[in-house]
Amino acid sequence: MDTLKKLQELFKRFPGIGERQAMRFAYFLATADRGYIDTLTETIEALKMNVKRCGRCFALSEKIVNGMCIVCADPKTNKEQLLVIEKDADRERFIKSRTYNGTYFVLGGLAPAIEKDFASHIRTRELLTLISKEMNQGLSEVILALSATPDGERTNALLKVELGKISEDTLKVSILGKGLSTGTEIEYSDADTLLNALQSRR
Amino acid sequence: MDTLKKLQELFKRFPGIGERQAMRFAYFLATADRGYIDTLTETIEALKMNVKRCGRCFALSEKIVNGMCIVCADPKTNKEQLLVIEKDADRERFIKSRTYNGTYFVLGGLAPAIEKDFASHIRTRELLTLISKEMNQGLSEVILALSATPDGERTNALLKVELGKISEDTLKVSILGKGLSTGTEIEYSDADTLLNALQSRR
Amino acid sequence: MDTLKKLQELFKRFPGIGERQAMRFAYFLATADRGYIDTLTETIEALKMNVKRCGRCFALSEKIVNGMCIVCADPKTNKEQLLVIEKDADRERFIKSRTYNGTYFVLGGLAPAIEKDFASHIRTRELLTLISKEMNQGLSEVILALSATPDGERTNALLKVELGKISEDTLKVSILGKGLSTGTEIEYSDADTLLNALQSRR
Amino acid sequence: MDTLKKLQELFKRFPGIGERQAMRFAYFLATADRGYIDTLTETIEALKMNVKRCGRCFALSEKIVNGMCIVCADPKTNKEQLLVIEKDADRERFIKSRTYNGTYFVLGGLAPAIEKDFASHIRTRELLTLISKEMNQGLSEVILALSATPDGERTNALLKVELGKISEDTLKVSILGKGLSTGTEIEYSDADTLLNALQSRR
Repeated sequence: MDTLKKLQELFKRFPGIGERQAMRFAYFLATADRGYIDTLTETIEALKMNVKRCGRCFALSEKIVNGMCIVCADPKTNKEQLLVIEKDADRERFIKSRTYNGTYFVLGGLAPAIEKDFASHIRTRELLTLISKEMNQGLSEVILALSATPDGERTNALLKVELGKISEDTLKVSILGKGLSTGTEIEYSDADTLLNALQSRR
Repeated sequence: MDTLKKLQELFKRFPGIGERQAMRFAYFLATADRGYIDTLTETIEALKMNVKRCGRCFALSEKIVNGMCIVCADPKTNKEQLLVIEKDADRERFIKSRTYNGTYFVLGGLAPAIEKDFASHIRTRELLTLISKEMNQGLSEVILALSATPDGERTNALLKVELGKISEDTLKVSILGKGLSTGTEIEYSDADTLLNALQSRR
Repeated sequence: MDTLKKLQELFKRFPGIGERQAMRFAYFLATADRGYIDTLTETIEALKMNVKRCGRCFALSEKIVNGMCIVCADPKTNKEQLLVIEKDADRERFIKSRTYNGTYFVLGGLAPAIEKDFASHIRTRELLTLISKEMNQGLSEVILALSATPDGERTNALLKVELGKISEDTLKVSILGKGLSTGTEIEYSDADTLLNALQSRR
Repeated sequence: MDTLKKLQELFKRFPGIGERQAMRFAYFLATADRGYIDTLTETIEALKMNVKRCGRCFALSEKIVNGMCIVCADPKTNKEQLLVIEKDADRERFIKSRTYNGTYFVLGGLAPAIEKDFASHIRTRELLTLISKEMNQGLSEVILALSATPDGERTNALLKVELGKISEDTLKVSILGKGLSTGTEIEYSDADTLLNALQSRR
């Protein structure tokens, strides 16, 4: 196959990229200067070597200290709270928002809608192992921070059941609060959002 | 002026209607059948006679009993809670959502951004009068249910100050809870929403 | 039924208006001032009396002189060309664009996709009658000016067949030119547009 | 700098890619399998070696025969017509549309709005050299096939002046036809498009 076509096929696997944009990427690279091309391919190749999953929270990270990312390794991180998130980009949102000071755990996805054995599609077992280990080291709360989408809600529900098997007295399990998010207009809100906003009024 | 042009000008004052759609409305009516036209104009004319503002909550209502809308007049409505909303459409959202059983108060707008004398642009005085009267009849909570927009937040803040002058022991003043609304994705959330969702976790 | 609900139902028949916007219109009118309401209903009622279809081109028009709209009645209008259009709004576009000086004919729709008897859904018979009459008065060209949509193209084709029965020597039948329209980018053009643009290159 | 951040910076230079999507690409690659990564970097590196500009039309091409792309080298290509286009993607659109059988010339951009010396920003000199050479070999028409955007129209005008210096008797210079493009609705057309469609009626 033609190199441009082959590159188009490869770029079509990038998240959110269709046929036409994939070809624009190929043309862009075909006319890019040598230096940019070399830096790009070297950086891509370096990823595998430099970026690893943290042995504790499974986040992708460059700086791995004793097998852990800098958040997990940092002594100033609050080890009493654990925030369970779907993916690396969500962790980055929380870090950038400067709203949370505890540790993270990257599930690696959401529970699929049909499959019975949801636990095998996301890191449920690893999460349970981590929790049981860290409860001896002060962990007292797990916060499920998944998106308020049908997939996120289903995963919340399934994880609540799993985590509910652990004694409530020693581990608090919470879910992010529901209500009006920034920009929500009453006139266009659904009944669930209004109910949640009423119930969580302050 | 031409009748079609005149009608176009009149329709341009309808909410959300621009020049082109206003003219489409005019053409539509110019070719509509006699019966539809007559029903339409009779119904519009009947509005003023049939639809009045409730003397208590200021909602537009067709069925006015003893000067009050059916929600205010209904003995089953919970008189201990008062939900303060911006406009009639918001009240309708809450009624349709079946999430609230108390009384309403229609502010008639939000506090303007610049004006100092915000109270005169919305029904602040009427609200305070109503509250002081109904506190003698069991009212114990006022819930500010405005949109999570800059205008809504500013109005919340200003009303909180006004209502804060009433004794906290006898009147609770609350604001709708903030957090993830239906459909919110963590990856695309702003810092305020994440902070609110964390603080209101359950 | 409730007057507001009834008005909502009536507004839902306006072109492009859904349930929610129809209710916003009803609320808007319920709070509009008396003068606006009266002017609106009087203007709507006046439409039927003031706005009539031109007896020649079937356009809606206020100023009907000897049964004809001002374009048809104007001696300065070029009677050699006849522009066949779908609807009144299209005629207004051409008038505003100041690109055409001949007469119009409003078809009143496009040929439906399924029906065999397309001619009865649009003013085909009236068009043929008009053409045969005006050919004695100097008409030499009929321009089909329908949208470049599947419905428009089908109607063009069907009308071409009908008009083709008239002697080519005495009546020219043309269709609006195809090619790049303002803003068209080559990269995103379909094959038909490129072919038409190539064939009509100048 | 962090490898993920560095990769994000590099992807931000891809056409149409912003900060957030650039980071999603970086995460995607960080978790992609070894085989995909290697194929991707090898294919990117192979581009420079395999894909070259045609020595005649300046199109990017893999199969260069005697310094020319397969279209230029193909004896079946009509050498009497030359289609001047902005960029490689436009040439691909024409090839896929099977509407044209002549040769191409890739300008490499459009004339900038401000600069006086437009000719130095696009391959004007190369175009003139090619034309003067191929006129001796049968070339009789140059078709300017640029987008119907302000930049495209300005470039059309400037090139028309340059090419107009060549004898009209021996070289025809044309521009793609203007008119309704696929999907254009009369009601929403601008005056230029209506005028062009009327003038190019057939």
